Amino acid sequence: MKLNGKTHLVLSGLLALALAGCSSTPTTSTSPSPASPSSTPVEELHSAVEKLSGNPLPSWNDGPAKQAIINFVKATTEKGSPQFVAPEDRIAAFDQDGTTWVEHPMYSQLQFMLNRVRTLSPQHPEWSSKPLFRGMLIGDAEAIGKATESDFDALDAATQVKMPVDDFHSLAKSWMATAKHPKFERPYTELVYQPMLEVMKYLRDNGYRVYIVTGGGQEFVRTYSERVYGVAPEQVIGSAVETQFEYDKDRKAILTRKPKLLLYNDKGGKAQNILLFLGKRPHAAFGNSAGDQQMLEYTQGVGGASLEMLVLHDDSDREYAYGPAQGLPDTHFGKFTQELYDEAKGKGWTVISMKNDWKRIFAWEK
Amino acid sequence: MKLNGKTHLVLSGLLALALAGCSSTPTTSTSPSPASPSSTPVEELHSAVEKLSGNPLPSWNDGPAKQAIINFVKATTEKGSPQFVAPEDRIAAFDQDGTTWVEHPMYSQLQFMLNRVRTLSPQHPEWSSKPLFRGMLIGDAEAIGKATESDFDALDAATQVKMPVDDFHSLAKSWMATAKHPKFERPYTELVYQPMLEVMKYLRDNGYRVYIVTGGGQEFVRTYSERVYGVAPEQVIGSAVETQFEYDKDRKAILTRKPKLLLYNDKGGKAQNILLFLGKRPHAAFGNSAGDQQMLEYTQGVGGASLEMLVLHDDSDREYAYGPAQGLPDTHFGKFTQELYDEAKGKGWTVISMKNDWKRIFAWEK
Repeated sequence: MKLNGKTHLVLSGLLALALAGCSSTPTTSTSPSPASPSSTPVEELHSAVEKLSGNPLPSWNDGPAKQAIINFVKATTEKGSPQFVAPEDRIAAFDQDGTTWVEHPMYSQLQFMLNRVRTLSPQHPEWSSKPLFRGMLIGDAEAIGKATESDFDALDAATQVKMPVDDFHSLAKSWMATAKHPKFERPYTELVYQPMLEVMKYLRDNGYRVYIVTGGGQEFVRTYSERVYGVAPEQVIGSAVETQFEYDKDRKAILTRKPKLLLYNDKGGKAQNILLFLGKRPHAAFGNSAGDQQMLEYTQGVGGASLEMLVLHDDSDREYAYGPAQGLPDTHFGKFTQELYDEAKGKGWTVISMKNDWKRIFAWEK
Repeated sequence: MKLNGKTHLVLSGLLALALAGCSSTPTTSTSPSPASPSSTPVEELHSAVEKLSGNPLPSWNDGPAKQAIINFVKATTEKGSPQFVAPEDRIAAFDQDGTTWVEHPMYSQLQFMLNRVRTLSPQHPEWSSKPLFRGMLIGDAEAIGKATESDFDALDAATQVKMPVDDFHSLAKSWMATAKHPKFERPYTELVYQPMLEVMKYLRDNGYRVYIVTGGGQEFVRTYSERVYGVAPEQVIGSAVETQFEYDKDRKAILTRKPKLLLYNDKGGKAQNILLFLGKRPHAAFGNSAGDQQMLEYTQGVGGASLEMLVLHDDSDREYAYGPAQGLPDTHFGKFTQELYDEAKGKGWTVISMKNDWKRIFAWEK
């Protein structure tokens, strides 16, 4: 998802791991199947909450995590509360991968890039002589691990950039409409966490503006954020490449995606880009990995009440289990380190146990 | 306002011109005067419009400009209109300097920088041996014109960057509270155009989200945008420097302004940054200079109804007159070229004559 030298190296590692782990699982349906459900998760959420009025978080088990959310909302929005937050300052930031939807066995956008290579390869016979492309096509992790930066520039150019923004939106939408997750065999857009949708709605109902602040590609996420999360495109902050103002053959103004990273939205970049987009700090932030640490620290410095939460994936039965915090298996996607766990405990952040705190993970369960 | 090499050169020219033209006019009150009016322009607007209900644009004379605004709003918001625009797509973009407030004799932020140098000079005796700083202090345009890029790096570092963002906000607010415009002898925040405030409100009342898209500094404008325009900080898109996530001595997370330009929000950059912030095109755009051309072209390409307007400063009695379009005097601040004028006429954009279309320019008139 990141296109500069440093992140090429990260991507290289991720691709190698991903292919080593799941190269034999085809994950995209090639038929034009009507993958969209008849009602969206947001709509399902609406009716679920209405049925259970009085409980804004029906998919949460009673416990400290649910209570922390309710306490925060009441403290910051009830008139007369000493911790009241003015409506214009009610901002909540949610990481996406691993926080609001599934990020294993690999980020969905990485799967999008892999599939772009597979789709385009018949038009590019020359790729068979390029180790990176060939490695991706046959699932050779070792070959991918050896790829150079210029190999990755070529991958970027082939899959995500050097095209008008509108074309990229179309590609992303089209892929998302047919791609399916290898474990759950459902569209990625159905793999959102119902408890987090409820938190988003609960916050919005209390005057908060909800932002997605993701390491993923901003324009990629914007193609489905409204439908899946009820989050408008302008409330998505993500990694972004530069664009170039140009004229097409009819002299119409267009923007073209350039192979140059503008915003790297991870770690300190999340705080920096929240400032860039909002000009102020959030009062609530939700994440699940070391890449979210600085966003939570920045949020806690807001002055006044704040809420910081981290999702711990400790449920291998219903979703996945990884850490390495608390002795959970290590991972390269969404690493939750023991250091982060200890910081959370030390600073009063809330760690959400997926296993214990979430009564239901997906809208379609049961 | 721009900090890279290219714009240093621009800035150099602007400073030289500004000092040549007005080096003898002290423009900042040093007393801590209560410069804020008891009611803001936005509040004054509210009551004015309420008094004249039925006419959402009371400061506009009847004519093609006023009619274009009303036609656009009706066409895009009335149910059943063939040009109806969905509420989520109702976005309007306003340039600031010269479009929503006075930009002559120089941009207010440039005045802020000049005054920063004057304020700080007693602590920097070494500046007297630096041609740029000395030139600014004594108003020597020629010396400023000869300044090197490293001189301007030093100016940036001394006035706007290498400090926590919160400190910059404080400096900008403090300056704005006391600075006065040399011609009108009022705070800059009172020099907003009443007709444009009315358009902003009229658009908002009809479901549009109003953005300021300025070549000026984003964090500078955000310190007053809500109070002056009713535009929230997150709806200000401007030129921006990079920031750096850091910890202060108490291990609190802070962001520090770096001397490196991240977003240059002028010309094609305006279109690029609208995409970056919003993920879509506006349906209405307002500007006044060649720096706004691409934003208007990008808006016109939205597909469906759109409104593009340019303010022509042709009123030397009530404000200023400059072009060089239509034989008006040339200028280095907010140049409205004849080419832009001809493009406007050719593409169906509306040129607003300040002299003929605006019944009243400022809220405090009469």
